[in-house]
Amino acid sequence: MFLNVQFCMIFLVSHVYGYLFPIEPRGPLQGQEWPPGSPWPLPFSWTSTEQLVTFDTATFRIVKNFTGTCEPIDFAIQKYNQGFLFPVYGNGNSSSDPSLPVVAELVVTLSDNEQQNECLQYPKLSDDPETHEHYDLGISVTDNTAIATLEATTVWGALRGIETFSQLIWPNDDYEGQEETHFFANITEIHDKPRFSHRGLMIDSARHYLPERIFYEILDGMMYNKLNVLHWHIVDDQSFPLVSLKFPELSAKGAYNDKAIYTPEAVQRVINGARLRGIRVILEFDTPGHTHGFGRAFPELLTPCYGDGPSGSPDAPNFPEHAGRENLDPTQNYTYNFMREFFTEIAQNVTRDSFIHLGIDEVYMGCWDPSHNPVIADFMIKNGYTDLHQVQEHYTLRHIEMVKSLGLTPISWQDPLDSNVTLDKDVVIQAWKDWGHPWDVQFKVRITDEEKSRILGGEACIWSEFVDKTNIVSRIFPFVSAIGERLWTFDMGIEDMDAANARRRLDQHRCRTLRRGLPVQPILPGYCGRWETENRRRRR
Amino acid sequence: MFLNVQFCMIFLVSHVYGYLFPIEPRGPLQGQEWPPGSPWPLPFSWTSTEQLVTFDTATFRIVKNFTGTCEPIDFAIQKYNQGFLFPVYGNGNSSSDPSLPVVAELVVTLSDNEQQNECLQYPKLSDDPETHEHYDLGISVTDNTAIATLEATTVWGALRGIETFSQLIWPNDDYEGQEETHFFANITEIHDKPRFSHRGLMIDSARHYLPERIFYEILDGMMYNKLNVLHWHIVDDQSFPLVSLKFPELSAKGAYNDKAIYTPEAVQRVINGARLRGIRVILEFDTPGHTHGFGRAFPELLTPCYGDGPSGSPDAPNFPEHAGRENLDPTQNYTYNFMREFFTEIAQNVTRDSFIHLGIDEVYMGCWDPSHNPVIADFMIKNGYTDLHQVQEHYTLRHIEMVKSLGLTPISWQDPLDSNVTLDKDVVIQAWKDWGHPWDVQFKVRITDEEKSRILGGEACIWSEFVDKTNIVSRIFPFVSAIGERLWTFDMGIEDMDAANARRRLDQHRCRTLRRGLPVQPILPGYCGRWETENRRRRR
Repeated sequence: MFLNVQFCMIFLVSHVYGYLFPIEPRGPLQGQEWPPGSPWPLPFSWTSTEQLVTFDTATFRIVKNFTGTCEPIDFAIQKYNQGFLFPVYGNGNSSSDPSLPVVAELVVTLSDNEQQNECLQYPKLSDDPETHEHYDLGISVTDNTAIATLEATTVWGALRGIETFSQLIWPNDDYEGQEETHFFANITEIHDKPRFSHRGLMIDSARHYLPERIFYEILDGMMYNKLNVLHWHIVDDQSFPLVSLKFPELSAKGAYNDKAIYTPEAVQRVINGARLRGIRVILEFDTPGHTHGFGRAFPELLTPCYGDGPSGSPDAPNFPEHAGRENLDPTQNYTYNFMREFFTEIAQNVTRDSFIHLGIDEVYMGCWDPSHNPVIADFMIKNGYTDLHQVQEHYTLRHIEMVKSLGLTPISWQDPLDSNVTLDKDVVIQAWKDWGHPWDVQFKVRITDEEKSRILGGEACIWSEFVDKTNIVSRIFPFVSAIGERLWTFDMGIEDMDAANARRRLDQHRCRTLRRGLPVQPILPGYCGRWETENRRRRR
Repeated sequence: MFLNVQFCMIFLVSHVYGYLFPIEPRGPLQGQEWPPGSPWPLPFSWTSTEQLVTFDTATFRIVKNFTGTCEPIDFAIQKYNQGFLFPVYGNGNSSSDPSLPVVAELVVTLSDNEQQNECLQYPKLSDDPETHEHYDLGISVTDNTAIATLEATTVWGALRGIETFSQLIWPNDDYEGQEETHFFANITEIHDKPRFSHRGLMIDSARHYLPERIFYEILDGMMYNKLNVLHWHIVDDQSFPLVSLKFPELSAKGAYNDKAIYTPEAVQRVINGARLRGIRVILEFDTPGHTHGFGRAFPELLTPCYGDGPSGSPDAPNFPEHAGRENLDPTQNYTYNFMREFFTEIAQNVTRDSFIHLGIDEVYMGCWDPSHNPVIADFMIKNGYTDLHQVQEHYTLRHIEMVKSLGLTPISWQDPLDSNVTLDKDVVIQAWKDWGHPWDVQFKVRITDEEKSRILGGEACIWSEFVDKTNIVSRIFPFVSAIGERLWTFDMGIEDMDAANARRRLDQHRCRTLRRGLPVQPILPGYCGRWETENRRRRR
């Protein structure tokens, strides 16, 4: 029954679809051991020595080298300084190891002062992956003085580097039974940048309402895994929780109840919380199918379905799969005018990202079938259409054109391509099918360099028919971590990526996340205290 | 990846194995609707009318008709009176419906005063299913006076009836938007008894340690589903959290750490918490395989494994499946003497149930293979054994005999039968294999009446490689509810049990459980407030 949980890895591609990558995390070849302080995801370049430094947990601080506020960096510095660097072990007492050089602080530098302008901006799809989230991180010792430095080109790279720094720190072997815990890090040099610019998680607040606090837990978990896009599938057939100021009836009649809503203020709080973590929020409004939620308040937007058979009558539901009305009526200007007004509000007052997800998946063609639906039949005759997919194309192209006129870049699920709808090259396609293939089929997929260059990234997706506040966080983490590493870390040239070897490193990361307060489910038998001790390679 | 979660329905049978029943909940034929106040699991006999009664939530109380304390009933009365009967809806204001007769109290009666002796006892496997958990429940109106009565033969039947009563109460349709909530029940007559005497849930505290508080959440959830056996797989290869007073080294060296333990007091608290909910606790100590946990403190209990090949050396692990030592050494008296001492402590001071689960599953025969293992080879020659299963039989029969001599009734997984080990008829066999069959194969299983008469019941089982405190409660509920109904409710003579129809009733039960504070995961899209209103059939 657990197959009911749709959970998959999806690659966002620009006009290329079908490349699904295996979800298994990867690691070095079997037999190698991961030392303590091994980061997740692995950096682009990472060298370390067996020489150690230590920390005075009472005085160590992350600081930035420039004055003035910078909300994302200040937010991170506060968060990490207050407990992420030196979690409480054993009896909670800790001290620096007197035999080792002490790191007094981590200094965060932005290499280009201009980049401080980003402190007030929302993160964007990077136009230069080489610099956008790049950072250099060093822990070194000169003349017995230990120094830790983090240099990034942008604010967002600094956030990624702070997370990596926090993962380099590890406690002594048997802290559970010791009077005092010492914390260490190895002499380390890291140069890092992401493999893909778009590293996302799709969540769905329509099948079940997700309270606002769950968003911050999810955003926290994303930040720990260097994910940078929250794809928010915000409305669907089942409910319409978004409060529109232009069309307040949408949530008044479409939300599960008057508390299961996202006010404009709540949406902006979530988007801002994402910004502080270097995460974009892309909203999805799925049309022309999946629109029963729109139809609760505005039933005239929808065309009646006529049941499956030729004898069907209007508004006849095809239980259990389909409702009496669930597709937009693509034949009337009213539909397009409504959508223009609605998306204008979204563009002007709601989204802070220039990308918008239009859905366009799973249009229930049985509802539009001209042999049952006289309105569609009439429309096809008038337009000289002979194939129902021309109706889909009609809607799709007009809808996309409207959204682009609002300054937004559309994303579509792969479905229009499957129906031979011709789309402009600037529409981003998100592949989601062919997921059912056996692992080995996906595992062997090899794509050309030209194809690779058009892949923007990928997403973990969880539709929420079977998850809600009770289980979504524990269900998605740490599986999202595995996807996060595949999206962040460059191919290391290992043909046979070895998940077995990566498991313990992922388990450490899971324990780290658990200690930070997220209820992340286990991937191995064990106990976080014990795993952390057992996995340790003492180096001095 | 979610297939990693082992979760299955298992029937405990007496010398008959292989009967696995489909896990899907059942309901009446498709098209019928469940009225509000429909109980889960369904009672043996349930009639109700459209006539309603109402409640004054401020004064209504469950009371018992006899004086003196009776811990299980007092515990239930307190628990249900304090919030389970009239959960807070809307703004929390409620009142009785002025147009309806008001039920002032539910009077709980034990039909046989002698049964009050059970107030201080632990529940047992029933010797008479007709009476052991039987109850009669009535809500009636005479001369405009409403009366609610619950009569049970035993304390345990009273607990089952109180739960059912709580499920008969439902709020008015649109309480979410109303000033005041009214609560109703239909005129109802229920005669109920369980289909099977053993209705269990197996949990595993060795692959991950489960804190004590999780046990009470699980026991609460079991009570809401009329389950009556907690099968506690308490130790295994991975850890030995049970503190033995006779062999304190077992947990000192075998627990994950010094906090991941169950002290004798904690075990008794859990067993007593189960008793208050009418639930037996059966402990499992799995031997002669799965004993690496014993071996941490007492490695000499285990025979060395020699790797897979003939060139294997002693204590050679066969990674990743097998450790260097993991089977008991069945050739030495030391092993049997140790187990006698250990199980004597269990029998005298730990278990409060007369059944004990001995495991005896998945013995890794590669470790005992006489072509590698000279100790086993020598033992076989001395005893004239020609087949390795004779070694398994040697251990199994001697171990079972010892445990029986302590007054305990052994339960074994089906594995010895699969190896043609001849067991006494009084050993209870628990089937667990053949789970991988397609649903329809299991669905069509028909067993004879004679076979049926030897089935004691069944269990939902969750081994905890991939669950711990972060996710076990949301993972097992409400799936356990489905199994609970199959074990409680008699076959209603419907050949094609219809899960689709049962879904909404189970969803209501899930929402009820959620309101009681357990993080039970959803089985359908929706929202508990909305589902409860949408599913309502107004009857007056």
